[in-house]
Amino acid sequence: MPPPDPDAVRSPGRPRRTEVDRQIVEATQQLIREGGPATVSIAGVANRSGIARTTIYRRYRDREELLVAALQPVTEQGAPAADSTLEKKLDWVLERAEEVLANGIGLGGVAAVLADTDPAFSAALRRSLSAGLEPIHAQISADVDSGSLVEHADPDLLVDVLLGSYLSRVLRHGEPDRAWRSRTARLLGTLLAGQ
Amino acid sequence: MPPPDPDAVRSPGRPRRTEVDRQIVEATQQLIREGGPATVSIAGVANRSGIARTTIYRRYRDREELLVAALQPVTEQGAPAADSTLEKKLDWVLERAEEVLANGIGLGGVAAVLADTDPAFSAALRRSLSAGLEPIHAQISADVDSGSLVEHADPDLLVDVLLGSYLSRVLRHGEPDRAWRSRTARLLGTLLAGQ
Repeated sequence: MPPPDPDAVRSPGRPRRTEVDRQIVEATQQLIREGGPATVSIAGVANRSGIARTTIYRRYRDREELLVAALQPVTEQGAPAADSTLEKKLDWVLERAEEVLANGIGLGGVAAVLADTDPAFSAALRRSLSAGLEPIHAQISADVDSGSLVEHADPDLLVDVLLGSYLSRVLRHGEPDRAWRSRTARLLGTLLAGQ
Repeated sequence: MPPPDPDAVRSPGRPRRTEVDRQIVEATQQLIREGGPATVSIAGVANRSGIARTTIYRRYRDREELLVAALQPVTEQGAPAADSTLEKKLDWVLERAEEVLANGIGLGGVAAVLADTDPAFSAALRRSLSAGLEPIHAQISADVDSGSLVEHADPDLLVDVLLGSYLSRVLRHGEPDRAWRSRTARLLGTLLAGQ
């Protein structure tokens, strides 16, 4: 059990624990998006949020724990509606992949993980991505069980195909447009339905 | 027609044009791999190669042209043997993708393009990748025509699936092993054969 936190007690003029947490997490997210993970330090987050460093350290053991707290809400996207068509589900995942990678984390953060320039950030992002992708894994497994996806559709490899298609597109051509996403969802939908 | 180049004339003790070019290109490739594109400047290449800046400028109009010359041989990988199985062809492309992205260009260079930190490098890499991938595009089209690939297998989107699967794997788990490549080639081979 965590030790009692004085900020958890509501008192006039003092933000509640949840409000302080929100401010810390938002400041961290802003720094990641604006300048990449290299700009995130406890001191920088204190500066940006106006929350004292000691208060931040009371809540997050270290920078990696703070990064996980900031990345987790960004990567938590749920799964597509279970009853939509396969093509629509794939389009949804591609759209969320773009939203999370380009706008949530920011491509500077993605680049930092690929180039391995910030091990604590890489670890935090991998933990958050893995948790955030669980509902999609589960949905793919359910669709395999129900027969709407071919039986050899390994969820873990399919996630790479979907996230990766977006990354390769940015690498080769820059940010893709809506038409690219539709074409990719249609192609993969046809292949994965086994028709 | 390019103007005559004095170095093109063989003279004792003076390297031939091709040898000087090789040294310039190799120094540029080394710098890209070791420190990413940010470390590549004409002065830096002169330093590394021992070739005078004026000699480099006589051959390459600017930094982008030098980058294209350095990246083109890295991305020129040809295509898999036309008569091998679909799964083996896919494995070959995945293996080459890893070799080019991780060892040829280096993931620091890939990261720079994704984060858009060096427009001249992004332009040079995109030109080189596009040229280097032509034989693979052609092979996919030929396989669609011969019926060994499903007819809706768009070469341009398939290239994203292949390159991207590798990139997403690195993002989510770090450098993949041989087993990941086999599993991915088998899954995509089954899907793309339309069986």
